[in-house]
Amino acid sequence: MKNTQVLLARRPVGRPVVDDFSVAESEVPEPGEGEALMQNLYISLDAGFRNWMDEGAGDDVLPAMELGQPVMGLVAGKVLKSNRDDLAEGEVVVGRLAWEAYSIAGPGDLMVPIQQKYGLAPNYYLGVMGDTGLSAYFGLTRVAAVQPGETVLVSAAGGAVGNAAGQIARLLGAGRVVGFAGSDEKCRWLEQEVGYDATINYRAGDVEAAIASTCPEGVDVHFDNVGGDLLEPVLNHINYGARIPFCGAVADYTATEASGPSNLFRLVANCGKLEGFMTHYWVDDYEAARDVLADWLAAGKLKNFEAMYQGVAACGQAYEDMFAGRNYGKAIVEV
Amino acid sequence: MKNTQVLLARRPVGRPVVDDFSVAESEVPEPGEGEALMQNLYISLDAGFRNWMDEGAGDDVLPAMELGQPVMGLVAGKVLKSNRDDLAEGEVVVGRLAWEAYSIAGPGDLMVPIQQKYGLAPNYYLGVMGDTGLSAYFGLTRVAAVQPGETVLVSAAGGAVGNAAGQIARLLGAGRVVGFAGSDEKCRWLEQEVGYDATINYRAGDVEAAIASTCPEGVDVHFDNVGGDLLEPVLNHINYGARIPFCGAVADYTATEASGPSNLFRLVANCGKLEGFMTHYWVDDYEAARDVLADWLAAGKLKNFEAMYQGVAACGQAYEDMFAGRNYGKAIVEV
Repeated sequence: MKNTQVLLARRPVGRPVVDDFSVAESEVPEPGEGEALMQNLYISLDAGFRNWMDEGAGDDVLPAMELGQPVMGLVAGKVLKSNRDDLAEGEVVVGRLAWEAYSIAGPGDLMVPIQQKYGLAPNYYLGVMGDTGLSAYFGLTRVAAVQPGETVLVSAAGGAVGNAAGQIARLLGAGRVVGFAGSDEKCRWLEQEVGYDATINYRAGDVEAAIASTCPEGVDVHFDNVGGDLLEPVLNHINYGARIPFCGAVADYTATEASGPSNLFRLVANCGKLEGFMTHYWVDDYEAARDVLADWLAAGKLKNFEAMYQGVAACGQAYEDMFAGRNYGKAIVEV
Repeated sequence: MKNTQVLLARRPVGRPVVDDFSVAESEVPEPGEGEALMQNLYISLDAGFRNWMDEGAGDDVLPAMELGQPVMGLVAGKVLKSNRDDLAEGEVVVGRLAWEAYSIAGPGDLMVPIQQKYGLAPNYYLGVMGDTGLSAYFGLTRVAAVQPGETVLVSAAGGAVGNAAGQIARLLGAGRVVGFAGSDEKCRWLEQEVGYDATINYRAGDVEAAIASTCPEGVDVHFDNVGGDLLEPVLNHINYGARIPFCGAVADYTATEASGPSNLFRLVANCGKLEGFMTHYWVDDYEAARDVLADWLAAGKLKNFEAMYQGVAACGQAYEDMFAGRNYGKAIVEV
């Protein structure tokens, strides 16, 4: 058996591009003591991992990725051979492995079994039932506490978290759901397929005017997936008591130079908050949240939009596409 | 009887200076129907009012101040003559009036009676028992919810809100209280008189290194009175779950050009929040908060530090001094 691996060929400058990665063949390894051999089924592409591609990034627990080594990523995979007491052969789990067809899960690597009770395929646990769906759900329910009738604005609305946030905001009773995207085509998709009331192509025209016209009653919640230049114009349109759940920072990950919004005082004048979060803060509530999400999925009220790529070698292209804003929904590679 | 008034002579550019104001004499007015004549006792100098000095600032309810008219400000005054049903002659109240010895309180002007039960002089209600003390109290208890043992960092620590915040953080059980100030002399005062554990003169040396050395366990709470350049270095030292109550924005009020922090993504990585607030959000809890503050005052645990100026004509100089960081504690003019 051969393993196909995608390696970090060079450290990206700003946005990753396909040439930052290379594809290599190798032998499938044998699991040692306390290890398990995983057959990777689906690979999740996440902007957050871009952080660990920089020289000297990370910390002792999770250091920067090494050049020439497989790129780290979140994977849903099946246990092929197990020398780990906690992993049974045939079990499907999600964990931080790598962009490759087969991986070794070491003794300390956290592998979370997929909950079978919902009857959903493994790829769902990298999308709407995984970190991305949970980010949208917890950001809107716990950080923002969206109230019926409110106006919710979502940045990177066509992305993994953004499309879920738009749908979930609606299901929570938001009165108006508006999304930012980077092309007219993606805006149409958001309005026609995902269910956004209105969209703003932030690359075209006057963003401030577009916010004013699409959010005539102001912005109660801004679900910020980006952390870049859009925060400043949005702050000029927030309502009293506005909440800005802040979950990604694609713009920051890729910024070689950046400056922040010059109007943070708008948070004072409006008693607003900008709150960063990561889903693991609510790890004890994952199952309760997934119960809700699975109910919505089963009722057809929530859709798991995916940009599915075929073959592990496609990881690099898929990652470039994600940062370039080319794909719609959650970017996943089917191994 | 003559009235002395301080007028807005020209609109300040950036930080206000004494020449932006002029002093004039006039007749003391007679109160008309539904009006009261106030003898102003103490005038509070507040950075927030700087906002209304700009051309076109404010809104329909509270428009920009007019050139050649008395400067708007918060005042503690005694009712001399009253044609208002809700104001008795001799009563001492706090309200938004002007930098002048006598004012007319119109029918719609909110005048809040001073609570007599604490036995404190009217100037206290412009300082630690007023908006400034309440800002410190609510910011630390409601927004930050300071926990015992935490490290609390305060910007503009020598100012009205800042000195109260430092004292109150300690009384709430903070393990370490550190303040930013703009001179070595003020830093010494904060450590020796106000009770800060350590201080940072942000005008001298490497601010990042100073934060690291004075906050060896990182920053749990940053009470931000300024909103300017200090937020960026502080964000590099926040702990997981950090809270940044954001109450003033002196830096923003006076910025002719500004850019914000480029590292807001630190809020995501640390699940931190930046939350703007104004005290009136908790208006129903004012009395409960004042009960606590008055107890601390009576026990000598909390001090009402004031920079007291004499004579209404001193308002302009006092305002310049405040923005230049020259005064210690709450700036008040005794009329």
